[in-house]
Amino acid sequence: MNSRSVFEGWMREAVQRTEAALEAWVPGDAPALLGQAIAYSVLDGGKRLRPLLVLAAADAVRGHGQAALRAAVAVELIHAYSLVHDDMPCMDNDVLRRGKPTVHVRFGEATAMLAGDAMQALAFEVLTPAESELPAALQARLCGLLARAAGSAGMAGGQAIDLASIGKPLTEPRLREMHRRKTGALLQASVLMGAATGNTTRAGWTALADYGAAVGLAFQIVDDILDVTQGSDKLGKTAGKDVDQDKPTYVTVLGIDRARAEAQALRREAHDALGRSGLDSCAWLATLADLVVDRDS
Amino acid sequence: MNSRSVFEGWMREAVQRTEAALEAWVPGDAPALLGQAIAYSVLDGGKRLRPLLVLAAADAVRGHGQAALRAAVAVELIHAYSLVHDDMPCMDNDVLRRGKPTVHVRFGEATAMLAGDAMQALAFEVLTPAESELPAALQARLCGLLARAAGSAGMAGGQAIDLASIGKPLTEPRLREMHRRKTGALLQASVLMGAATGNTTRAGWTALADYGAAVGLAFQIVDDILDVTQGSDKLGKTAGKDVDQDKPTYVTVLGIDRARAEAQALRREAHDALGRSGLDSCAWLATLADLVVDRDS
Repeated sequence: MNSRSVFEGWMREAVQRTEAALEAWVPGDAPALLGQAIAYSVLDGGKRLRPLLVLAAADAVRGHGQAALRAAVAVELIHAYSLVHDDMPCMDNDVLRRGKPTVHVRFGEATAMLAGDAMQALAFEVLTPAESELPAALQARLCGLLARAAGSAGMAGGQAIDLASIGKPLTEPRLREMHRRKTGALLQASVLMGAATGNTTRAGWTALADYGAAVGLAFQIVDDILDVTQGSDKLGKTAGKDVDQDKPTYVTVLGIDRARAEAQALRREAHDALGRSGLDSCAWLATLADLVVDRDS
Repeated sequence: MNSRSVFEGWMREAVQRTEAALEAWVPGDAPALLGQAIAYSVLDGGKRLRPLLVLAAADAVRGHGQAALRAAVAVELIHAYSLVHDDMPCMDNDVLRRGKPTVHVRFGEATAMLAGDAMQALAFEVLTPAESELPAALQARLCGLLARAAGSAGMAGGQAIDLASIGKPLTEPRLREMHRRKTGALLQASVLMGAATGNTTRAGWTALADYGAAVGLAFQIVDDILDVTQGSDKLGKTAGKDVDQDKPTYVTVLGIDRARAEAQALRREAHDALGRSGLDSCAWLATLADLVVDRDS
């Protein structure tokens, strides 16, 4: 068995574990259409990249398995809620996501908004079970990392910059700053939440933060490239929408060749960071960085 | 000085402390219009009932002062975010709140949605400072109580039932169930988060939970009564809107006389619960129950 197929076995198992936990912890009994809308948005599809980063980082630090699984589910809930809200008419007004009608198209805008709101709360519920299931100190640590990545210094702040940037030219540093918050913060938090479930040195923590930042930015650059090079069928979402909405992207700011070169440079940065981490089982993290850069959807 | 003026002195000081903390912890540097929208919605006005319940309960259990203040700010942020989202066109479509244009009228719908999202995250940021400021076990406890009160078993779930009930007759038990979640859960959580900052017996905890449930329901019944008996000027929000939107309320389901009698019965329930709590400094909580029932706006 070559190392890629070993990785694929791990990945399949990690995705299955995440999805089983999502099934178990998403409240099917949530009132009115809320439970259905939440299940619709989070139980069916998605690459599960953030959970994979959590579980790979936890593996690298030999972390607390149950804590890592809860962290994986929590970051995925935050990611999924952000997509639900982002697709709404007052934001991106998108009708297609993972090849299906978006949540507000299927369930109405009010239910979509409430579902997103409830999913954010659910992420913190998942991180705060009985003390016997997860040490309180770790619960607090994970809640703190997730809240900061989701809030105005992270994802929500990045979306606000994105919104304010429509139709405006952005410099590359400003574009980078927007994406560092909008997508990068949660991807980096995924790595750090995984790392928090075990022991790391200070240098190891910093290296994993650098890895997370590089992968987070690479992810966005590749997203921008795929938005212009792939069709909607392949992406499962509306392709070309950044251009249609006159949003600045890495492709519009750097051009496609420099954007591709930048993604490769970030892959090397991610690998270098793992080399500095002092951790010896970083294979999953290394392959995930490759996957982020090499993906075609 | 009579006991009411002593209470008023405590209340004034508690509100000032909460507002100073909100000023300090709300991120003025949040990007684009996000910081302004958050500040607009949370820094100017409101009765601060939930923070008062937190601080009064903390006082009753001689709780951790800094923890109680953080809990007070966190519940107020959750409450304020719910108002921002609730006022949006896809929900109640309201233009007036605390005598001012609502957030989406002032800043646009997309910014209103993101501001609400960021405020929910901020609530959990406020609850997870450095370990030196707040013991980790207490951080985890407070995050858990707040998340459950805000999510689909609490506030968001209640809003979903509310949404699904427009134009439909509701029985009194179903109406009670809706409000137990929609407004009751966060009011009860305010009391319990305050209680969690100190020591209580199991019986004391249960009694405070009963007190919180009674006050929560009384608050909603009085809200429904005021919606038909007061004008928009007095309320600082659009009066009569439940009737306009054909929503079931305690007044439509019970009639105004039985609704008033029910509010008085709940006041007695709240006082009785404090009597069972075994705590000797419940004066602020007792007066807050009176205030909730006797208020005229």
